[in-house]
Amino acid sequence: MQNYTRSMSCLIQALKRMPGLGPKSAERIAFHILRISQKDAKALAFSILKVKEKIKFCSRCGNLSEEDICDICKDSNRDRSIICVVEQPNDILAIEKTFAFKGLYHVLGGALSPLDGIEPQNLRIKELFDRLKKERIKEVIIATDSDSDGETTALYLANRLKKTQVKATRIAFGLPAGTNLEYADEVTLSNAIEGRRQL
Amino acid sequence: MQNYTRSMSCLIQALKRMPGLGPKSAERIAFHILRISQKDAKALAFSILKVKEKIKFCSRCGNLSEEDICDICKDSNRDRSIICVVEQPNDILAIEKTFAFKGLYHVLGGALSPLDGIEPQNLRIKELFDRLKKERIKEVIIATDSDSDGETTALYLANRLKKTQVKATRIAFGLPAGTNLEYADEVTLSNAIEGRRQL
Repeated sequence: MQNYTRSMSCLIQALKRMPGLGPKSAERIAFHILRISQKDAKALAFSILKVKEKIKFCSRCGNLSEEDICDICKDSNRDRSIICVVEQPNDILAIEKTFAFKGLYHVLGGALSPLDGIEPQNLRIKELFDRLKKERIKEVIIATDSDSDGETTALYLANRLKKTQVKATRIAFGLPAGTNLEYADEVTLSNAIEGRRQL
Repeated sequence: MQNYTRSMSCLIQALKRMPGLGPKSAERIAFHILRISQKDAKALAFSILKVKEKIKFCSRCGNLSEEDICDICKDSNRDRSIICVVEQPNDILAIEKTFAFKGLYHVLGGALSPLDGIEPQNLRIKELFDRLKKERIKEVIIATDSDSDGETTALYLANRLKKTQVKATRIAFGLPAGTNLEYADEVTLSNAIEGRRQL
């Protein structure tokens, strides 16, 4: 049986390690790369190298940035009295797409997970409380995930924030938009009932 | 709203052009690339460049190759009296995986499609008949796709092969393995009945 040539195997192996790419999709992308122009292939390769070279983390909030301080922290139009705490930089992008938040962010770099050995000192929690001392923050919105690690982290932060003057809030949990109530799982539905608001 | 940093946007744009990758998967892969080691990212980038640099097409059969003649054409254990004609180099890999064919190949580089302006002179058809003159070929298996372009190409080749001493055959069409007869579409089923064999 003939196999791929050596350079094709290498490429397919490297592509297969990407999330969501199985052997078939890796093969398909590799054959696509063979067909595209030299210029486009170079652009793809160099954009991978560029990202690794350029991207660092904002020294204040932990967001992705090509400079020491990220664009959000620099933006003078944002509300500097409110910080939204998230697990990862991509959570910031998700929230920014909603246009529903105009404050600053703080990236923890993960969530507490004692079983995996992720303790408070492994996250950017000290940095958060340092910011609360230095900056004039009135409210911290805890926007960690709604899984058990995210909830543990939220609880931990809420407990520590109680000892400060800062108001701690948690994003709402309930029915996602556009869903049928009958198909919602029990936890989502009980969250939705518990978090009901007066109309 | 904050966007990706410039280098991230570039990478996501380049990834989105790959087949099967939408905006969400491109974003996911880009964030994955941010997380992997510098070494792994470099390996991926260089494997893309390497493929474009190394891979050419076999001057005899049109298969992918890193040298002038591909491994299959060079292999002295293969049956040199039979050629399997396919549309693309990846079709060769699919057939090789079956271990059902031990002859040589010939890649056309596509299928006839008069509407898209693909005429016989745009495919490697002249090269095929040149090989029939030079090599001692007894049989040509036409393994183009079973869509209308593939069928047109098969018919065209069969007509031209009639004028030679070479036997022309077409791969079988019928029920795919492991399917229920009741769910087969009419064309597949009528192909299966038409191509029936004595037991």
